[in-house]
Amino acid sequence: MAIETMKRVLIIGTGLIGASTGLALRAAGFAGRIDGWDQSSLERMAAMQMGAIDAAAASVEATLELARTADVIVLAVPVLAIKDWMQKLASVTRSGQLITDVGSTKLEITELGKTLFAAPETADFLPGHPMAGKESGGAMLAEAGLFNNAMWLFTPGTPEPSATEKEWRDWVGFLGARTLDMDAARHDELCAWVSHLPQMLSTALAALLEDKFGDAPEIGAIGARALRETTRLGASPYSMWRDVAMTNTGPIADTLFALEQRLAHVRENLRTPELRDEFALANKFRQRR
Amino acid sequence: MAIETMKRVLIIGTGLIGASTGLALRAAGFAGRIDGWDQSSLERMAAMQMGAIDAAAASVEATLELARTADVIVLAVPVLAIKDWMQKLASVTRSGQLITDVGSTKLEITELGKTLFAAPETADFLPGHPMAGKESGGAMLAEAGLFNNAMWLFTPGTPEPSATEKEWRDWVGFLGARTLDMDAARHDELCAWVSHLPQMLSTALAALLEDKFGDAPEIGAIGARALRETTRLGASPYSMWRDVAMTNTGPIADTLFALEQRLAHVRENLRTPELRDEFALANKFRQRR
Repeated sequence: MAIETMKRVLIIGTGLIGASTGLALRAAGFAGRIDGWDQSSLERMAAMQMGAIDAAAASVEATLELARTADVIVLAVPVLAIKDWMQKLASVTRSGQLITDVGSTKLEITELGKTLFAAPETADFLPGHPMAGKESGGAMLAEAGLFNNAMWLFTPGTPEPSATEKEWRDWVGFLGARTLDMDAARHDELCAWVSHLPQMLSTALAALLEDKFGDAPEIGAIGARALRETTRLGASPYSMWRDVAMTNTGPIADTLFALEQRLAHVRENLRTPELRDEFALANKFRQRR
Repeated sequence: MAIETMKRVLIIGTGLIGASTGLALRAAGFAGRIDGWDQSSLERMAAMQMGAIDAAAASVEATLELARTADVIVLAVPVLAIKDWMQKLASVTRSGQLITDVGSTKLEITELGKTLFAAPETADFLPGHPMAGKESGGAMLAEAGLFNNAMWLFTPGTPEPSATEKEWRDWVGFLGARTLDMDAARHDELCAWVSHLPQMLSTALAALLEDKFGDAPEIGAIGARALRETTRLGASPYSMWRDVAMTNTGPIADTLFALEQRLAHVRENLRTPELRDEFALANKFRQRR
């Protein structure tokens, strides 16, 4: 696949990110064919009705048939399902094709890619992660502009980008995203801090408040922006986060433990000048942003 | 003071809440005089220039002179300063006047009010707390619409509202706020959960990230909405929170300890079905809101 030879795209998983990728490709002028598959027929139909995909495959087998002739295959399912699809695709794809993914954790996927797609006759594999999303998933929430100004990270397993990779990277730019390459382990560590920790924190806080107050009306009556913002991600479903927790357990546990210690430090210093230092550090962090 | 006898208002502390109160009174049609005092001459001048107050007192002594003839005195300074002003005002005010405050914690203020303003010859004291604010303070951020749809809580120390109280409550409604009365200790416990805990959490998270990453560019590059929202309150200055921590230490410490335990529970269950239960509880909390 050379420049402008991307004619057929196959999107596996037509939820929020997959369907948004299809819509964004169309909005950016992609004129080729986009096929899609989702294990939920509702998601498949929604993605087709909104024009994110031209046609929906009817089964996993049909999807694998489409994979044989796709120029680019985008894996937009949860991380463990991405790993399953990588195994399935290894035997039906070949040199000249590109497989890329949008999974939230990258180390396990990148390592598997190096194992499955290292030989000259195999497809290229480019691990990717657009930093875009919503607290709920699903094709119905998809938007062509979802990646506008978002960061789309890559954690390539090979040092030199292939021609197929380069074309996909160009398209990612056309979708409105900026790109950045980083080491997969570093990616997972950083994402634990900036994404997975805020999620677990928000879930823990909302769960704690639900346990403590249930349907007591007072919380709704007096809770304001601070409460809404810090618990918003509590609406995220387990189905979106299970695989992240399973494939980035160590780094997430480290961030949680560090925050537990930090909260204890604040708790023990509510009446001492140490609290001032804590606010000063936090102020400094925000001023940089 | 009977209905529509509120002619002179004195606002002590013309920062964000004090100056917004002045602007909101004017916007709601208050035609009487509004005097103001702030220990910062910059805040006093800013409040006067934007029309939040008609005139600024030149000193604490001049403010106490104005207090003798004010119908309503609004204390809009930090909690410990409110307690100081209550002591000062007790000897220069009399029956028929109303002193009210906007402090973030209510138990210590309400208890002091019951001591200082219980006799028939004293002014009435109505402890109040508008649930409105921003992550930064100061008159420059004041807005007439700050209290629009906000909840303005009262924790009255006496069972029966006086006529002066009733008129102020009416005005609070004219400012666009809803009102709710609650027990002062309950107020402080609930506010620890919905306001003080989110603040301490956000400060601790931002401070932790500052310690860990300093000016590393990657955090800014890949951090998205989840990070921005959960650290936004980290911009709040210590000066706004010191007195809250000092006057609500026990309840805040309880909420922090509970969250520490909850985070540990999440950390220990990143790979177990317990994590699903935690997400389900958090989802339930959000669905109610």
